[in-house]
Amino acid sequence: MESERPQQVLTEHEVFDLVRDDLHCIEGVIGIESVATVDTAMTTSKGPQQNGKERLRAALLLLCARFAGGGSNMAIQFGAVVELLHAAALCHANVIAGEQARRHRSPDCVHWANCASVLAGDWLYLRAFQMALRESVLDRAIRVAQMMVMGEIIQINRIGAVGITEAECMELADRKTACLFSFCGELGALAAGADSQGEERLREFAWNLGMAFQLIDDTLDFVPSKSIQCKQPGGALKEGKVTLPLVYALEHATVSERDLVADVLRDRTCETVPFANVLTLVGRYGGIERTRARARHFTDRARKVVAMFPDSFSRRALFTLTDLVTECTC
Amino acid sequence: MESERPQQVLTEHEVFDLVRDDLHCIEGVIGIESVATVDTAMTTSKGPQQNGKERLRAALLLLCARFAGGGSNMAIQFGAVVELLHAAALCHANVIAGEQARRHRSPDCVHWANCASVLAGDWLYLRAFQMALRESVLDRAIRVAQMMVMGEIIQINRIGAVGITEAECMELADRKTACLFSFCGELGALAAGADSQGEERLREFAWNLGMAFQLIDDTLDFVPSKSIQCKQPGGALKEGKVTLPLVYALEHATVSERDLVADVLRDRTCETVPFANVLTLVGRYGGIERTRARARHFTDRARKVVAMFPDSFSRRALFTLTDLVTECTC
Repeated sequence: MESERPQQVLTEHEVFDLVRDDLHCIEGVIGIESVATVDTAMTTSKGPQQNGKERLRAALLLLCARFAGGGSNMAIQFGAVVELLHAAALCHANVIAGEQARRHRSPDCVHWANCASVLAGDWLYLRAFQMALRESVLDRAIRVAQMMVMGEIIQINRIGAVGITEAECMELADRKTACLFSFCGELGALAAGADSQGEERLREFAWNLGMAFQLIDDTLDFVPSKSIQCKQPGGALKEGKVTLPLVYALEHATVSERDLVADVLRDRTCETVPFANVLTLVGRYGGIERTRARARHFTDRARKVVAMFPDSFSRRALFTLTDLVTECTC
Repeated sequence: MESERPQQVLTEHEVFDLVRDDLHCIEGVIGIESVATVDTAMTTSKGPQQNGKERLRAALLLLCARFAGGGSNMAIQFGAVVELLHAAALCHANVIAGEQARRHRSPDCVHWANCASVLAGDWLYLRAFQMALRESVLDRAIRVAQMMVMGEIIQINRIGAVGITEAECMELADRKTACLFSFCGELGALAAGADSQGEERLREFAWNLGMAFQLIDDTLDFVPSKSIQCKQPGGALKEGKVTLPLVYALEHATVSERDLVADVLRDRTCETVPFANVLTLVGRYGGIERTRARARHFTDRARKVVAMFPDSFSRRALFTLTDLVTECTC
């Protein structure tokens, strides 16, 4: 695959410089769209916008639009739609995933946080759909939202189960992450007025990028965090979720090693079984390496799609995105 | 107002007979629309469809359509949209209102119920919007959903506050209930091909009906329940909500009586202050009677709207609806 990589790859800074002004416009649109007349909604809806990874989905959409021949006001509106959808899904996922947070908070405090998350999520979804309707992409936006909700439904049905398969992990990565990435590729193409083939290719590029992104994210649960902003290791496992690195490890694990994982899944803490034991298990059977290899498989496919097109500055930017996704170890 | 009532009023049975076949069709549409490929979503989304009051909003919509000159397949589709919206809002309201339920359940059990409610609500909203898009009424559906979500946001901001005003109660009744009723009138008119004046009048009729419905519902918190399906008295108060009957009573209450209510709102139980004391207070200052009178004021206005039209079988049905709403003491 290396032969398909361009000689000159852009830096992360150069890539985001390309879309910085448009991202700023998207912030403005989201600000306007999210403003409710009631303080709570304003406060809660601002939460997800400000934490962690910055507008990656909007940046992907804008870069795809540039690659396909143009940025436009439409791309900015679309960027706001995908970020509002993402923020809405995050709000509702917070209610679902907050098991660890619940352990050290009063029931009243948890209840209040849940109320705020449910309502802020509803509000953001409605804003996203209202914008999507105005931009004539609502049928697509609803389909993507359905995929994401169904991903959460599948996930809670698997909570606590040890016998998860690789295929099941891939299905979740698709629904939880890649389908929204794919939507970014599609909307980028649409904003640039690309033909159906161009749209299909950008969708494929972005979908593969999203799969890689989710798999790398799954590995972060099993590596020590490097900064305070990073995920705390073991979080997914303590929520009862078996992700790909562990699936791979369990394929080769002994009966007693499987029992050890089953204990953590049952207890939802690492009090009886230290998480270091799980890390040792994942390390012993190369769970991280195999997952990273699978992620690279997806970025290779993403690069292959982009490599069909002639070299350009914005093509290099898309190549750089594939590097950023797999290099991310925070 | 009595002079505007027709000589011959229909019975509840006759009214629902009018729309029974169409309601059955709506059940079919909702069934198809709600079916998810995953068991959880199916199980949870069926919950709200099966409890208590049966498809009142769909029946209202169908009766308005008949009144305006015709039922149609469009009315059936619209009926499914409003019932899906209502069920979605109920699911999310369950997460918010479930304080009493939480007191006697394990945290895991509460968490699971919350997850199911959030996801089932999301799923039902998405189905409603998908149908509304197909029927070209999505912009209206989103506006109504926004009103309802904002109603919930306003409500949680007022939890525990004693100094609620009559106007604030009316605002909540509008957002929580009357705006969806009004939407039923609007869609009924639209399905029948009514002109804008007809649409406006049915919207007004249904809005007033919804206000009356909510106010009567508020009184049920202060009367002993007659059957096992009825609301348990005191529920709203124990959730920290001051509703209209209590607002009226507090207008005339002594300082120590106000303190008594403040104690229940703070404790969220009736362990230190028996609920009977609150009932006595509401009874002493005529809170129930004044609220019922306000509800009758709204049904009178609803009747006034319908009385502008010539007598017909379906006009009588709408009159009967206004009686049913105010007579409801279950």
